[in-house]
Amino acid sequence: MNAREFGRRYAHLKRLIDRRLGAVVTSREPRDLAEACRYVLSAGGKRVRSVLVLLGCEAVGGDIRQAIDAGIAVELLHNFTLVHDDVMDNAPSRRGRPTVHTKWNVNNALLVGDVVVSLAYRSLLKTRTKDPRRICELFTNCFVDVCEGQALDLAFERKTHVSVSDYYRMIDKKTGRMIATATELGARIGNGTDREAEALRRFGRNLGRAFQLQDDLLDVVADEKEFGKTIGGDIVAGKKTFLLLKAIERATGKDKRTLNSIIKTAGRPDRRTVEKVTAIYHKYGVIDEARQQIRQTTATSLAELAVLQQNRGTRMLQWFSELLLRRVS
Amino acid sequence: MNAREFGRRYAHLKRLIDRRLGAVVTSREPRDLAEACRYVLSAGGKRVRSVLVLLGCEAVGGDIRQAIDAGIAVELLHNFTLVHDDVMDNAPSRRGRPTVHTKWNVNNALLVGDVVVSLAYRSLLKTRTKDPRRICELFTNCFVDVCEGQALDLAFERKTHVSVSDYYRMIDKKTGRMIATATELGARIGNGTDREAEALRRFGRNLGRAFQLQDDLLDVVADEKEFGKTIGGDIVAGKKTFLLLKAIERATGKDKRTLNSIIKTAGRPDRRTVEKVTAIYHKYGVIDEARQQIRQTTATSLAELAVLQQNRGTRMLQWFSELLLRRVS
Repeated sequence: MNAREFGRRYAHLKRLIDRRLGAVVTSREPRDLAEACRYVLSAGGKRVRSVLVLLGCEAVGGDIRQAIDAGIAVELLHNFTLVHDDVMDNAPSRRGRPTVHTKWNVNNALLVGDVVVSLAYRSLLKTRTKDPRRICELFTNCFVDVCEGQALDLAFERKTHVSVSDYYRMIDKKTGRMIATATELGARIGNGTDREAEALRRFGRNLGRAFQLQDDLLDVVADEKEFGKTIGGDIVAGKKTFLLLKAIERATGKDKRTLNSIIKTAGRPDRRTVEKVTAIYHKYGVIDEARQQIRQTTATSLAELAVLQQNRGTRMLQWFSELLLRRVS
Repeated sequence: MNAREFGRRYAHLKRLIDRRLGAVVTSREPRDLAEACRYVLSAGGKRVRSVLVLLGCEAVGGDIRQAIDAGIAVELLHNFTLVHDDVMDNAPSRRGRPTVHTKWNVNNALLVGDVVVSLAYRSLLKTRTKDPRRICELFTNCFVDVCEGQALDLAFERKTHVSVSDYYRMIDKKTGRMIATATELGARIGNGTDREAEALRRFGRNLGRAFQLQDDLLDVVADEKEFGKTIGGDIVAGKKTFLLLKAIERATGKDKRTLNSIIKTAGRPDRRTVEKVTAIYHKYGVIDEARQQIRQTTATSLAELAVLQQNRGTRMLQWFSELLLRRVS
């Protein structure tokens, strides 16, 4: 499989998901609620999580058509978190469009999030599988963790001291858990063995970690046009990224004071501060450290695939990891 | 069965629920989230919905112990709606204590609601039943409807014209659906026949309607001390109750203008307006009409019980309806 084949297959799976996602909201009223739900679900996005459900299924030799409803469910759960998180973060826009609470109001955004979760379960329950209870348990445990992950994230914003291990605990819940659930769900629906399903869960968890680390890293080193966001946005926001926390661990004296000051004055630092902080990141080697962590986490994820049969699903999953590596190298 | 026996049995079932509800939140952190969840679940309340799950199960000859997890799930879903609705209504207190968003903040209230739903599914999934998918579908359909019911309720607040049939559609989703789901869930878990389960669903829907109508009525005719709320609160808030909507349908001229004015000046009318509006309610017979509707809906609910075996569960359900009738007679 080459990059072009990967891209073509990915586009095909994404189309399957997008088509079904467009038909999830069937109610016409209450109007504001139905319209806002459709608005959210038509915002685009890469649909990574749902594609991973399909690939998890294919990797254990299952029929991906049986995993589509679960793929939709995971995508809906992801969108629920986006809508509620945007309210909590008071975010004005997402994917270049106003957020739900900006376009309508906070009450409607609350309801949209709630109803999208209920639709997620409705979709999940359509899955034909020999053990629906297990599928639902997996999904529900993910739901619990994602809420706790967001709560941890909010708590971090208020704390002055957060360690790198706190950071990992948070991103494992907030980001890793959903990716891990996606790949494991696919494996369970495709009737994979426990060994395969667990390997796919660990694959997802490590991939999720690598994703999040990459996101943190790209904020500093990416090409602005390609990245689609303003470089240094995390620094300006005083966000407790891997880079910042690791740098605080290592820095001393004036450098440490500079780093601590951006946490306290979140949202105010200017261009010059971004440059200063980036220089500190380089000085203490945390950029290289992040790259190293991404390489290692990705390698761990790839190693998990060894227990699976070699088929198109498994090769697609390998590509997922490898593309990630290329982007940060 | 007499009132004392009913009361004793009810207290016993409520204790079973309260004990289990106290053990639902096992996490200690994130601290604000765990504490606020415990705060919500320890607020007391009659636990009507969970007791109805147990009684639905008992009424079809099932073992109530098998229905406890589902009873907890319904109670959790109910508490989720309270927490999020309080945010949307900007309510300062509930059951004599500050609401979650008042005691903590809106973000924590959002997360508490979200996590309580996830815990509801976790509890539901513990239920030992031959068809877990069906149980989950029932619960999920209820979840969808409750969100839509709340959205309708919010939309009503902004509308100047709402019909009595709009009102019924809204309360059937917002209140009736959860009561109907409670009794039907119990019946399904107790391995009732389809005929029994459907009768219990209709019993619940009508009981829910009667409950809501009673709530509307008591706002005007109740004894303030016994009711536990200020009389005329709905009138002051300009809430579109059965009484108000029915009176608007019937009134003409100056009376109609008075009624329409309280909708527009919601939250401002004083003691005198409450008296004036109450007088209009009497004049157009809408108080009697509400009583009549409650009697009729309750009678319909009681008739549904005819297909069930006569046992303690069924008799308890009869008492539920009859106590409701007594209160409004």
